[in-house]
Amino acid sequence: MTEETISYTGLLCPVPLSHNDRIVLGHGSGGRLSHNLINKIFLPHLDNPILHAANDAGVMQLSDQEGISIPRLAISTDSHVVSPLFFPGGDIGKLSVCGTVNDVAMMGATPLFITAGFILEEGLEISILEQVVQSMQNAAQEAGVLVVAGDTKVVQRGKADGLYITTAGIGTISPGIHIGGEIAQPDDIVILSGTIGDHGIAVLQARGELGFQTDLKSDVSPLNHLIKNMLLSSKHIHVLRDPTRGGLATSLNEIAQQSKVCIELEESKIPVKPEVSAACEMLGFDPLYVANEGKLIAIVAPQDAEKILDVMHSTQYGEDAIVIGRVKAVPQSRVLMRTMIGSTRVVDMLSGELLPRIC
Amino acid sequence: MTEETISYTGLLCPVPLSHNDRIVLGHGSGGRLSHNLINKIFLPHLDNPILHAANDAGVMQLSDQEGISIPRLAISTDSHVVSPLFFPGGDIGKLSVCGTVNDVAMMGATPLFITAGFILEEGLEISILEQVVQSMQNAAQEAGVLVVAGDTKVVQRGKADGLYITTAGIGTISPGIHIGGEIAQPDDIVILSGTIGDHGIAVLQARGELGFQTDLKSDVSPLNHLIKNMLLSSKHIHVLRDPTRGGLATSLNEIAQQSKVCIELEESKIPVKPEVSAACEMLGFDPLYVANEGKLIAIVAPQDAEKILDVMHSTQYGEDAIVIGRVKAVPQSRVLMRTMIGSTRVVDMLSGELLPRIC
Repeated sequence: MTEETISYTGLLCPVPLSHNDRIVLGHGSGGRLSHNLINKIFLPHLDNPILHAANDAGVMQLSDQEGISIPRLAISTDSHVVSPLFFPGGDIGKLSVCGTVNDVAMMGATPLFITAGFILEEGLEISILEQVVQSMQNAAQEAGVLVVAGDTKVVQRGKADGLYITTAGIGTISPGIHIGGEIAQPDDIVILSGTIGDHGIAVLQARGELGFQTDLKSDVSPLNHLIKNMLLSSKHIHVLRDPTRGGLATSLNEIAQQSKVCIELEESKIPVKPEVSAACEMLGFDPLYVANEGKLIAIVAPQDAEKILDVMHSTQYGEDAIVIGRVKAVPQSRVLMRTMIGSTRVVDMLSGELLPRIC
Repeated sequence: MTEETISYTGLLCPVPLSHNDRIVLGHGSGGRLSHNLINKIFLPHLDNPILHAANDAGVMQLSDQEGISIPRLAISTDSHVVSPLFFPGGDIGKLSVCGTVNDVAMMGATPLFITAGFILEEGLEISILEQVVQSMQNAAQEAGVLVVAGDTKVVQRGKADGLYITTAGIGTISPGIHIGGEIAQPDDIVILSGTIGDHGIAVLQARGELGFQTDLKSDVSPLNHLIKNMLLSSKHIHVLRDPTRGGLATSLNEIAQQSKVCIELEESKIPVKPEVSAACEMLGFDPLYVANEGKLIAIVAPQDAEKILDVMHSTQYGEDAIVIGRVKAVPQSRVLMRTMIGSTRVVDMLSGELLPRIC
């Protein structure tokens, strides 16, 4: 297939970024504007090989002490500004722990420690803070991580929105495990752990912006135990990524670009709950771009795909795992989708902002 | 000396905290209200031995892999909400790196890695963000740490104040080093690395709240190289702490409580720049409670005090180091000050909020 035969969706032209520009909500979308900001502002100044790898977490080797081999560390951070603070299936506290636990786990690491920095708005009810902290602890216990450091700052009324939480996570990577967005290979199988869009639509519903009520809950969950079981079952998992902001489409585009491969999806295989489908249709959203907080993409060697799926199906948070596509050599750095009516289209990265403050 | 003979300053009665309460600016002061919040809300839910140690950073041992001894890690986090973003001697970027580097170094650790989570307000000029990021990189280079993970979120206008940065830091602690607020012992010597209050008053000046102009600059600096030299010179450094929010008085109270000792200061020895002194007098502040961002307290065994002072005097950021007091057995958990006129008074922890959003 050549590019001429495929139809384009989304913005493929780069969005310019000049120093006279101002921050817009789209810079926090996780999509193209976020990538522009990272590439134009953050990387030129802070660049180092770890940050440049552009994975969910940085991976580093502590310097050997007296020739002793020390495990590699995976380190990640996420700021959380979700609005509202509570939504069906979770809250900002659960989100802040799961988000960071998952980013660390996506490098094949065992998450061990979490830090939490709170920015509180003057006037916040202390009972709300307590609920959030309790929720963080529940999530930390489920994930098996310790909160080892915290900090609290307070800003005046109108200088925050209730509370924001920034977590960082640290985990260790066992010898022999090498996972990264740059390791996808032609013929690899693309697995998705379950339905997409649940988190984004659940938050939208909590904002009262949906116009109808559903039983939908956010999928926010710690995925580290699922990943541990997957890694025990196969030595040929190449990429793990959680499709959060920017959704499945954006995460797959990142991987296609990092690995310089084509990822071809089967539209008919991508699981979407009827409520999510209905909400997206009504609002003009594409579920491919709606955020998830408890799902993962696994790109694995074809010979191990069945084995890995079996393990996923027998583990919490992986029951609905399904093969959604495969990796091809060309066109490089592209995500394509074979639609239900048999055509093929390009699936681009999120370009603007779909749903601000979803995480 | 018994408690009857000493005069009290500040609030010694505990400030009640009920679930109906709301967050006030003082909860971010680093003083008594912050401690109440930590003790009533954070510790009951998140409690674990590492967090409960209440030091500047959590210290943890990675589990041994096959009997191999792995270095201990020190992990810390700080959210930064300083207003204004730029002030004489620094900006929020430099502050966010130095603050976390210093917290890690205060455990006797070598800081290695930093993460940074940005919360940006819609409308922020990108040129401002770029200046801040450049400043972070300069500070990281001086400290010798790598920024290994980052995240950016954007909130609507009026939901932040330009930008907030939360950093986390990770360092390793060499075998044989044991530093902590609970290790101060009677007869130990209390060393301060230089003048107090420079940071707080410099930020106040940048806000235009001083009413007069001075050449004063914030002392914001990475202290890890100073600490490394100190640790090379002595095996008997018991406590290191940077007196940031809440100032010297609050940090010393924390240490006195952790170690269950009395810290007795000599008022005449505490170095304060004339501009800081003048500003404090005019505004009714006590420099003992004004924030520092490039100073440290070292509590050391008496036999090594001279040696440590010599090393500090020959190292950047330690030139003005001076002995300001000593540790006594009683009254436990108290900080006393022998005033210039020969009386002794209790120096309490900061009770309310002196200067909001100083860091």
